[in-house]
Amino acid sequence: MDIANGVGDISITDKSPNVNINEDIVDPWTVVSSSDTGVDYDKLIKRFGSQHVDKELLDRFEKVTNQPIHHFLRRGIFFSQRDMHLILNQYEAGKPFYLYTGRGPSSSSMHLGHLIPFILCKWLQDVFDVPIVIQLTDDEKCLWRDIKLEEANKMAYENAKDIIAVGFDINKTFIFSDLDYIGQCPEFYRNMVRIQKCVTFNQVKGIFGFGDSDVIGKISFPAIQAAPALSTSFPHIFNNKKLPCLIPCAIDQDPYFRMMRDVAPRIGFQKPALLHSVFFPALQGAKTKMSASEPNSTIFLTDTVKQVKNKINKHAFSGGQATVEEHREIGGNCDVDISYQYLTFFLEDDEKLERIRKDYSSGTLLTGELKKILIDVITPIIQEHQEQRAKITEELLKQYMTPRKLNYNY
Amino acid sequence: MDIANGVGDISITDKSPNVNINEDIVDPWTVVSSSDTGVDYDKLIKRFGSQHVDKELLDRFEKVTNQPIHHFLRRGIFFSQRDMHLILNQYEAGKPFYLYTGRGPSSSSMHLGHLIPFILCKWLQDVFDVPIVIQLTDDEKCLWRDIKLEEANKMAYENAKDIIAVGFDINKTFIFSDLDYIGQCPEFYRNMVRIQKCVTFNQVKGIFGFGDSDVIGKISFPAIQAAPALSTSFPHIFNNKKLPCLIPCAIDQDPYFRMMRDVAPRIGFQKPALLHSVFFPALQGAKTKMSASEPNSTIFLTDTVKQVKNKINKHAFSGGQATVEEHREIGGNCDVDISYQYLTFFLEDDEKLERIRKDYSSGTLLTGELKKILIDVITPIIQEHQEQRAKITEELLKQYMTPRKLNYNY
Repeated sequence: MDIANGVGDISITDKSPNVNINEDIVDPWTVVSSSDTGVDYDKLIKRFGSQHVDKELLDRFEKVTNQPIHHFLRRGIFFSQRDMHLILNQYEAGKPFYLYTGRGPSSSSMHLGHLIPFILCKWLQDVFDVPIVIQLTDDEKCLWRDIKLEEANKMAYENAKDIIAVGFDINKTFIFSDLDYIGQCPEFYRNMVRIQKCVTFNQVKGIFGFGDSDVIGKISFPAIQAAPALSTSFPHIFNNKKLPCLIPCAIDQDPYFRMMRDVAPRIGFQKPALLHSVFFPALQGAKTKMSASEPNSTIFLTDTVKQVKNKINKHAFSGGQATVEEHREIGGNCDVDISYQYLTFFLEDDEKLERIRKDYSSGTLLTGELKKILIDVITPIIQEHQEQRAKITEELLKQYMTPRKLNYNY
Repeated sequence: MDIANGVGDISITDKSPNVNINEDIVDPWTVVSSSDTGVDYDKLIKRFGSQHVDKELLDRFEKVTNQPIHHFLRRGIFFSQRDMHLILNQYEAGKPFYLYTGRGPSSSSMHLGHLIPFILCKWLQDVFDVPIVIQLTDDEKCLWRDIKLEEANKMAYENAKDIIAVGFDINKTFIFSDLDYIGQCPEFYRNMVRIQKCVTFNQVKGIFGFGDSDVIGKISFPAIQAAPALSTSFPHIFNNKKLPCLIPCAIDQDPYFRMMRDVAPRIGFQKPALLHSVFFPALQGAKTKMSASEPNSTIFLTDTVKQVKNKINKHAFSGGQATVEEHREIGGNCDVDISYQYLTFFLEDDEKLERIRKDYSSGTLLTGELKKILIDVITPIIQEHQEQRAKITEELLKQYMTPRKLNYNY
């Protein structure tokens, strides 16, 4: 949040040659679109040099896993990828790989948008039956914000509870805080050094927009977020073997892994594969993503039934018309309507969603009615999350966060 | 060794306002003097903003410790200091502090010059009866040189044996390799982050001469060398207490600690005190310091009696005259004579040293005779070192390098 720079010139392999400063701003600290319909994701794929999640990949996914595809993939919520076919090859051949995702703990309460990568990761863990490592970058938060290490570390543990509540298998999941784990694992620190030896200031300047007045902790941080993409950073899980890694994450995190894909082969590792999601839009509209630092734009996982209802009714940007009469006549615009957008994330029934889209577009369905549908979909999800979270004891939390062997033979 | 820059503009507190590029180059990677008599240390004190080790300090040192002063201090080999009076205050008041020094393991064999800070540290440990932590920056060596982590780590352990052979008290000494210890101690990593949050790229550019094409590992490394100056980096020794730290080191390492003295009060610590030594000159002359990468300029601790004799006879730069007749007439120049210089380090007897100085200056003592005196002084020191080193078992080495409680109640 502290660096209001664009992506700048991406000076490593997976790059695009032309970056226009009038384009959407998408980097790990800023997401701002110039359009009401949000970020232009096709342009982003070109700019970042990734591939579409296309029909061919989805068909192969279903065939190889013998499972119906998750609606996040089916609906283009995870729209971009790198090397997913290599991961499917690996799975098809019965060979091991692992999942890695993470989160920068920004406040003690997570919001609805934060759940997206974790929901997909949990599904991927079930479908592939592989371990996942989840990094909580409390060190990053200290470097970027005016907070003490202890505070950031505490937030990491609070966030871990929300992540566990998504349903990760305790026998296949390792969640760690940088401030705790790096000082417990010489191999992780060694991999940091290996990566930091391969990346110059010029490169992080180009990739992340760092400047001369940035603190040296920020400048070297990208290596810390990249290190979990090397399986040897977790000797207790992967038995010092070099394994392929699949990273599901929101597309704004891609710069870290683009950098890592450049470094990996130079230090004897396979490039990490990626699955990129779109951003979960703010209540006020798709110009920016939901952010914990803007309470009115945000549905927190701790919100009450009443708060959820009020926030959606009061703040969810509507694609409807000014009057009922006009709406019946012209119809609503689903492309900018936030309630409809949220339903694409959380209403799994394709037919029902399509009916809603048609009815709202034609004007049969009114904005108030659409908002009620959303409230009815979201409320039980948040209630279920709160119930699951309440069950997580300190003992259970500690188990997930203890470096240990997982239930997978590497 | 890779960065041939000068000290540049020192943009933090303990600074000098004027840096002339025609001055001696003194930084952690380069020491080059423009004069045959070596670096101008008085100028360096002004430039670095430190204080002389003066008679008043030495008198107080003897009084407070009730011990005769070490000849390294008496003869100005440790010539510069910061806050030494605060350390003596602490000792006088019966309050605890600790020593910290280190070394960048550059090859598996150390040389005579490397011993200097360790010899003084061992003496300070005995006199003050305090613990010492000794950092081996194997991570630094990987970042600056084209070697693998495993190789640098191995060199660190080889060097540790030479350090132990100096005679450090096993009950009061902790020696550690960064590549091993940082991954064993969350508090060390946390202190790295605290320091890296306080120092900008602009500052390390000014202090260390880093540039945009330097790798990010180099840019953030200064925090790693600075972290042991915070006692909380060693919870097993200092019980999480904040204690004053005294760092004896060669003056080229001062930039790290100048930086740390700027940071320390901002994160709630006392500034570390320092004792700076001159450089141990190369055999070929005082224009540069002895370096392991220049075998002909260097007496290694592994050299045989014959090698020591040959190197001194063949390579030690002489302040004598071209012929015996001329020498008898004009006399030798002790200010540039390397054999005489080395005697100031290793011949403890003041009267004998003074007699040699007079005799050589007057021409009574010939160069060959002076070299023979040096050989007779150095040989038993190296032999004794080799004997002590041979006694160090892997078990003993492991003990010194295991994080543990030391014999001191903090």
